[in-house]
Amino acid sequence: IHSKLPNVGTTIFTVIGKLANEYDAVNLSQGFPNFDTDPKLLQLVTDALKEGYNQYAPMQGSFSLRKIISEKIATLYGNTYHPESEITITAGATQAIFTAISTFIRPGDEVVVIKPSFDCYEPAIELFGGKTVPVELEGLDYSINWNKFKSAITPNTKMVITNTPHNPTGTIWSENDMVQLQEILKGTNIILLSDEVYEHIIFDGKKHESAAKYPELASRSIICSSFGKTFHVTGWKVGYCVAPNALMGEFRKVHQFNVFSANHPTQEALANYLKNPEHYLNLAQFYQEKRDYFLDAIRSSRFKMIPSSGTYFQVLDYSNISNESDTEFVERLIKEYKLASIPMSAFSLDGFTNRQIRFCFAKTNEVLDQAAEILNRI
Amino acid sequence: IHSKLPNVGTTIFTVIGKLANEYDAVNLSQGFPNFDTDPKLLQLVTDALKEGYNQYAPMQGSFSLRKIISEKIATLYGNTYHPESEITITAGATQAIFTAISTFIRPGDEVVVIKPSFDCYEPAIELFGGKTVPVELEGLDYSINWNKFKSAITPNTKMVITNTPHNPTGTIWSENDMVQLQEILKGTNIILLSDEVYEHIIFDGKKHESAAKYPELASRSIICSSFGKTFHVTGWKVGYCVAPNALMGEFRKVHQFNVFSANHPTQEALANYLKNPEHYLNLAQFYQEKRDYFLDAIRSSRFKMIPSSGTYFQVLDYSNISNESDTEFVERLIKEYKLASIPMSAFSLDGFTNRQIRFCFAKTNEVLDQAAEILNRI
Ligand SMILES: CSCCC(=O)C(=O)O
Ligand SMILES: CSCCC(=O)C(=O)O
Repeated sequence: IHSKLPNVGTTIFTVIGKLANEYDAVNLSQGFPNFDTDPKLLQLVTDALKEGYNQYAPMQGSFSLRKIISEKIATLYGNTYHPESEITITAGATQAIFTAISTFIRPGDEVVVIKPSFDCYEPAIELFGGKTVPVELEGLDYSINWNKFKSAITPNTKMVITNTPHNPTGTIWSENDMVQLQEILKGTNIILLSDEVYEHIIFDGKKHESAAKYPELASRSIICSSFGKTFHVTGWKVGYCVAPNALMGEFRKVHQFNVFSANHPTQEALANYLKNPEHYLNLAQFYQEKRDYFLDAIRSSRFKMIPSSGTYFQVLDYSNISNESDTEFVERLIKEYKLASIPMSAFSLDGFTNRQIRFCFAKTNEVLDQAAEILNRI
Repeated sequence: IHSKLPNVGTTIFTVIGKLANEYDAVNLSQGFPNFDTDPKLLQLVTDALKEGYNQYAPMQGSFSLRKIISEKIATLYGNTYHPESEITITAGATQAIFTAISTFIRPGDEVVVIKPSFDCYEPAIELFGGKTVPVELEGLDYSINWNKFKSAITPNTKMVITNTPHNPTGTIWSENDMVQLQEILKGTNIILLSDEVYEHIIFDGKKHESAAKYPELASRSIICSSFGKTFHVTGWKVGYCVAPNALMGEFRKVHQFNVFSANHPTQEALANYLKNPEHYLNLAQFYQEKRDYFLDAIRSSRFKMIPSSGTYFQVLDYSNISNESDTEFVERLIKEYKLASIPMSAFSLDGFTNRQIRFCFAKTNEVLDQAAEILNRI
């Protein structure tokens, strides 16, 4: 077999997850909550199952769910997406991202990707013969250098992939960042794939800067979001994306033959659950408390950090502790200390290492305590 | 926007489904049951939700589900697939098919597709720059001409896609067909994508001929199946595929970045439900009764037909009734008679029409009666 992805192995989340299980490690590696889902939401799924929402959802998703998403976006970001033609429910945000790349990337196309980044972008680009053009974030605070970004754009640039709040660094983009991005993309035909799956997890009173808020960006953007992250149900695999009519029309041509539609009973439940905006507006506060709890608990450790501004991830710097590469260090933490995290190099280009590792703090305080106890000992 | 799929429109199922709703038509178009799911299976999902199966399933799928699938295949088809490395749970069989094509098809590769066929194969092939090489089934009984099939194979043939029981024709392949296929593929590197989503819906005491039963085929096959079709839950979007280690390894490289994993609570429920083989072994009898009920009810109509041998579809020939094209006829049936079906040309190459239309009989007897009443009047 002649592999189309010869350099791609098993995703880091599966590799580390397996190792964590083997060593019975406290698991702060893959991003998912370990606490209970709101019983009201579970009850809504049970209701949907009983009411018979067990056959194919519409290809685009349940209309009631698309409608309430449209209203949410209008309220939060002041932009109107038409439920009929501009919103599609997907089998998780990953499927939205893969499908968007499938839909638009051809051999030779360049895609600018901010690095480090979530690990699903490049393999999809490669699968379609596209070329990833990385722009590395800079400094300890992982800020973007817009001049560097601008010089990454060429006549072959077909797409730019951005992500705020940012996995894995926990940084967020400001209004100024969005304006810079807008300036650079103006007048081009470049498509923006805006990964906003952590849109509701943002701290310290800051506001999420959705591409939907910026007309010049919105007109060229496919914006992806996730219910899994927002409602503590990563295993349901229901997400969505929004885009102007013309882009969405092309997206759906592929979506319909990739998965056809997403899980139906959970869509019905989510449509009902979203009627109460508190269910997502309270999320920022909830996770800010988690972040603070975790950071307070490791204050006396030898790790350095800048507090996360969004997402449920916290990067810790171990350069005071060890010279090992991050993969070596992560492996040793699992095997010797029974604590699992993700090496930051997994999100970067080959060979990159900055002696930082990523922790997911979407965990009960009990598990955060266990992790902190270990981190304070290292 | 320069479309990658300029000739692809909205899938026929969405187009006809919408028209059927508009005209409030009796809907025998898209293939899905309109009757209740077994309450025991629904209860198992409710249990799984409460037990907390709400975070990511393993990328490959729940181990318990993969294990029981392995046992089922060993019992029914005498072949052993290793749950760890040779079975993957997908977001429906469509995602398995799309991912398999993504994984193996490169620009210039030829893919032999038996026509008519389900509509998701060609767009996926086209998206990856592959070329569909059609082999048309022949005669009123839609049989395959193996000489014609053989001459469609060239040095560029990368993959062959087969489908038994066959959607849309309701035909099945015999042991002799499988042996012929095996003879032709022997000694080549051609991958077989075997769509067996209707494996448990087969009539008149006949047996399903899975590629898994034929070592020479199994060694090169990705075999796709569907829980939606087997357990009346098409909207859950859970299917699976099996393949030898080497093929599955490549498949998972793409799967993990396409959807990562499938809906988790339904996987847990299905793993438990599958423990009782009656739940799928009784399906053939159940649908045979539906087929017979439907055919009895339209015996006095002017439509001609050969009874379906498998799947929940029945093709009816209207050449005694009208000279319209099948799309015109289907549209008129919806608008004038309030009965929805699918034109067979939707499954064929452009322009093909044989004055046949497809009906889904996975419906309550009440709905089948309503349809029959109309068909008897036409
Ligand atoms: C599909 S694995 C994802 C979990 C996640 O987003 C992360 O850990 O980065
Ligand atoms: C995803 S639409 C499918 C339903 C079906 O299999 C059919 O009607 O042919």
